Amino acid sequence: MDQPRVAGVGLTHFGAHPDRTGRDLFAEAAASAVEDAGVPREDVEALLYGNFIGEVTESQGHQGPLMAEAAGLRVPATRYESACASAGVAVREAVKRLRSGESDVLLVGGAERMHNVGTRGATAGLAMAADDLYEVRAGVTFPGAYALMARAYFERFGGTREDLAHVAVKNHANALENEYAQFRREVTVEEALEAPIIAEPLGLFDACPITDGAAALVLVSGSYAGEHDLDAPVAITGSGQGGDSLALQDRADVARAPATADAAEEAYAEAGIRASDVGFAEVHDCFTIAEVLAIEELGFYEAGEGVGAARDGETTREGDLPVNLSGGLKAKGHPVGATGASQVVEATRLLRGDHPNSDAVPEGAVGLTHNAGGTVASAVVHVLEAVE
Amino acid sequence: MDQPRVAGVGLTHFGAHPDRTGRDLFAEAAASAVEDAGVPREDVEALLYGNFIGEVTESQGHQGPLMAEAAGLRVPATRYESACASAGVAVREAVKRLRSGESDVLLVGGAERMHNVGTRGATAGLAMAADDLYEVRAGVTFPGAYALMARAYFERFGGTREDLAHVAVKNHANALENEYAQFRREVTVEEALEAPIIAEPLGLFDACPITDGAAALVLVSGSYAGEHDLDAPVAITGSGQGGDSLALQDRADVARAPATADAAEEAYAEAGIRASDVGFAEVHDCFTIAEVLAIEELGFYEAGEGVGAARDGETTREGDLPVNLSGGLKAKGHPVGATGASQVVEATRLLRGDHPNSDAVPEGAVGLTHNAGGTVASAVVHVLEAVE
Repeated sequence: MDQPRVAGVGLTHFGAHPDRTGRDLFAEAAASAVEDAGVPREDVEALLYGNFIGEVTESQGHQGPLMAEAAGLRVPATRYESACASAGVAVREAVKRLRSGESDVLLVGGAERMHNVGTRGATAGLAMAADDLYEVRAGVTFPGAYALMARAYFERFGGTREDLAHVAVKNHANALENEYAQFRREVTVEEALEAPIIAEPLGLFDACPITDGAAALVLVSGSYAGEHDLDAPVAITGSGQGGDSLALQDRADVARAPATADAAEEAYAEAGIRASDVGFAEVHDCFTIAEVLAIEELGFYEAGEGVGAARDGETTREGDLPVNLSGGLKAKGHPVGATGASQVVEATRLLRGDHPNSDAVPEGAVGLTHNAGGTVASAVVHVLEAVE
Repeated sequence: MDQPRVAGVGLTHFGAHPDRTGRDLFAEAAASAVEDAGVPREDVEALLYGNFIGEVTESQGHQGPLMAEAAGLRVPATRYESACASAGVAVREAVKRLRSGESDVLLVGGAERMHNVGTRGATAGLAMAADDLYEVRAGVTFPGAYALMARAYFERFGGTREDLAHVAVKNHANALENEYAQFRREVTVEEALEAPIIAEPLGLFDACPITDGAAALVLVSGSYAGEHDLDAPVAITGSGQGGDSLALQDRADVARAPATADAAEEAYAEAGIRASDVGFAEVHDCFTIAEVLAIEELGFYEAGEGVGAARDGETTREGDLPVNLSGGLKAKGHPVGATGASQVVEATRLLRGDHPNSDAVPEGAVGLTHNAGGTVASAVVHVLEAVE
């Protein structure tokens, strides 16, 4: 079985780009990735592209062919959509194709544009990741859904708003030097706690922002990398996906996120590692409580034990297991359909040593990315390792 | 390399179901497919699901997990979207996973609901398969786009509205006995020619209808079928995908559809066949001119020679190469995100001998399905064969 490599990575600045179309954003990220890979454009065999709600924000479906053309390619192109995990499933499908020998060179990525429809439009659009009939029409928005999960967690395991504030503080600190990040400003625990409540117990600093942006990757088979003597020192050694009911009401336990555990189990088995082998992780912190659930379901912490990790310095850049060195969705930003690819970009940069926070990654560390859709009805996990 | 089999098929009635949700429709098709397959539900490893514009028609993205639950499954679930080829790309991805040994049992399908948003809403939604900035805002709807292609074809190669009318007459005749079809009434050439013009030279009978419906398939690896002694006599022996620019303006030639030729070339090579080996085909006749372009690009006819095929009886049920024995999108209907899977359902039934038109399929015939997105910016081709 072939071991796929990350040959090239590309990102736009994450933030507000109300004057730039999705295709404009993706074209920039794709061009960067192709240039970084040093692969002839004509070798790219297909585009696997993630986008969540282009129909709503740009009246644009069928973005696969549109984005292939924006990337200067005339190749088969498919859009993958699993809400906030859209690019994660695209990366996973690419890994499958490269491993099986079906393909040698693939462009993978995603883009999302949301500022152009305003906060109200973006909130309505994001709600489409939840169950329209049984959640949204009952008044549940995404901050509300994660607030329900946080309440259930606090009731069962304990934990405080201050614990969650430490997650935000950590991720903002990590984003300070990240040139692609939407927010490059420190926040304090006091500032986070004093911010307006958006859905009890979550305040403004518990939520990621609305973000426009794009991310792209050139993924190649190990055999192609070898034959073409590519500088592609990062391999994707494991990939897993988990699923759960879309609506919270259909879950056995609102304080857990088992789709993440399923995805991790599969990815670890493929990579031949255990959770304790992971050296750093980019996890899906759309809300601070989501990071807590993620690091537990990924097996880094027992259930109920992850809520103090940031507070105790265990997941900070100085800790034993740095989480979201990029700044995470919280501070780097969350252009929904791009996020899963962006996490792989960041983990690659961290492993290659060309990320501003690479010094927090020990030699030989195993990296992990975790991308979740909705209230973790979808989850995708990838394991990345530096190879010779 | 494993040879994937179609183990089970399921369809809803195609037509107007304004009172049924997408999940309700897909649940029915999925239950039929699982029952037809005789596979334990717990063996199903993932759902690969096609949908085009659920965000617009049902305010519902992230339909993968929703539809998995509707099918009674808690498995990784991904939505694929390539406009009208959404389920086609889902089928193709499933074939890749089964061939490579990544999976043994997959549920694949799609659903679309459009009547609930009315003709205006459906037309606006369908336009999202074209380039919003450079086509739709210039006033191009889908009938308009295909009318441009028909005009270009007529100018270059000749052909008449009457030639196209024969395509509609043929497909309506084929649907007469199909219990799932939206239209089960004969039309005559005269009736088609006298119908209102919707975009010169296309009249009402040159266009497929707006359709609600769902389709599902249980696809299994050949090894699983063997080990479990399944009655799964149809194999998918070839799969191909092609891409083109989204907008017509960026094409070298508006009278051609090269993405179909690319998809066919790949599928034929995999199956080890030539175009002349194909015995019957389900092709993407969203408009009558689309069927003409399809049978040419698939290699059944030279460019400019396909327009008279239906008129001359070559593609009727009595002809040498029956096309759209199901009734096609034209008469059976076109629930957009379901169509690609529905074509594989119909080809399977035709090969198994349990389709009302199976008697038009000679013993040992090779079947083909062709699913196109937008103005053939995406195209997917599958080859199906009866095996021992």
